[in-house]
Amino acid sequence: MGQSDGRYRGARNHTMTLTIHPIDGVPEARPGDDLGALIGQALEVSGWTPSPEDVVAVTQKLVSKAENRIVHLKDVDPSPESLRIAETSTKDVRLIEVILRESRRVVRHRQDVLITETRHGFVCANAGVDLSNVEGRDVVTLLPLDPDRSASKLADRFGCGVIVTDTFGRPWREGLVDVAIGIARVPALVDLRGTFDRHGYQLRASLLATADALAAVAGLAMGKTEGIPAVLIRGYEWEPSEQTARVLVRDAKKDLFR
Amino acid sequence: MGQSDGRYRGARNHTMTLTIHPIDGVPEARPGDDLGALIGQALEVSGWTPSPEDVVAVTQKLVSKAENRIVHLKDVDPSPESLRIAETSTKDVRLIEVILRESRRVVRHRQDVLITETRHGFVCANAGVDLSNVEGRDVVTLLPLDPDRSASKLADRFGCGVIVTDTFGRPWREGLVDVAIGIARVPALVDLRGTFDRHGYQLRASLLATADALAAVAGLAMGKTEGIPAVLIRGYEWEPSEQTARVLVRDAKKDLFR
Repeated sequence: MGQSDGRYRGARNHTMTLTIHPIDGVPEARPGDDLGALIGQALEVSGWTPSPEDVVAVTQKLVSKAENRIVHLKDVDPSPESLRIAETSTKDVRLIEVILRESRRVVRHRQDVLITETRHGFVCANAGVDLSNVEGRDVVTLLPLDPDRSASKLADRFGCGVIVTDTFGRPWREGLVDVAIGIARVPALVDLRGTFDRHGYQLRASLLATADALAAVAGLAMGKTEGIPAVLIRGYEWEPSEQTARVLVRDAKKDLFR
Repeated sequence: MGQSDGRYRGARNHTMTLTIHPIDGVPEARPGDDLGALIGQALEVSGWTPSPEDVVAVTQKLVSKAENRIVHLKDVDPSPESLRIAETSTKDVRLIEVILRESRRVVRHRQDVLITETRHGFVCANAGVDLSNVEGRDVVTLLPLDPDRSASKLADRFGCGVIVTDTFGRPWREGLVDVAIGIARVPALVDLRGTFDRHGYQLRASLLATADALAAVAGLAMGKTEGIPAVLIRGYEWEPSEQTARVLVRDAKKDLFR
């Protein structure tokens, strides 16, 4: 192969093999459901017992339903601001009203797109309010009030890391990816600044959003149509952390795009 | 567990278990190296033979070095525009010059941050020009001229899907994640619009950036300091595609943040 010049270092056994197992058989959540029990039973059926090093990722949708973060649009009275936005929007004015109630402010608005900053600080389409995958077409889910707390409760139950995921768009790039909106035990960010690469060069900008990368692959394994709302991630090496998903929100003062 | 009400569907065997294997033992690439040979030999040492369903993800840095996309700053003469930007920047004026040469235009500039649109259309910090992990502190790597072509050559060699990854920041969220800047065979985007979720609700916004999710988890498995420049992804189910990473670039006219 022309490359046998002694540069191959061979397997060094320090690498981690990551495995992402979709947790099959989790039923639809209903308001008031014990989410830990729902997922726990599906884990049991699958024969998996989370160990402290594992990470369970759960979709926002499942969490929101169990926590009764559901709104029937028929019960919503639009405000003057919603009516004003609806004039140039393709969205149902009642949906706009729900989105505004979940938001601190509107970041961008154009016809079918309404990007806002949620009360948690996340910048995303429709403040995370979602029409799909909920019983009834005039029913929407809201993001959990405190997704970190939702994650924390599950982490206490399973004794492992937990991430609550949602599917966000991005500026400049097409397509959606899952990100972490709630985190417990597992780090949100891993800071490599001050460490050195193999040439001794300091890695200045390497603050890695590891929880978002875990969320992204969880989303991939979940698919969208199959209704797999949770996955078990094994083999990711991490140090327990007190970080919440709030540390993933860039401070507005530092942000060049708000 | 209080939830045994017949809602559990049990394992349905339609789920995929994803496995991400770091490919250890890939040496530093040197200009003119046969990248396929470098990675191929490391795969061989590891005992892995990619099958057509596998995806190999490779860092931009490894590709760029093999393709001699390297610039010595001592050879760079700054233009008036670079000198102007340098007045309010913490960056080396020669680095600014290299960044501008790689860019179509500057998207944002503030002190230590220079976000541009690359000739490929990617919007990222420093046009993807990178100081770290290259021999010598006054040496920088540029993005591959045509990362899709780089991916394609590797895909032909290994007979599997290939993604070239780079580590990008994001507006609104702290931390970096890896994204796909070059793609061969494996889809960039999976379009679920027009499909229906399990309540029969049409998934309107579900255009998933699956290649970016694969890149994100590849980045997680590679780490940053360990010098693992390639991973083998098994168990991801995909249909062969002609899409390139260019389809991940949102058209400037549709973009609300340029």
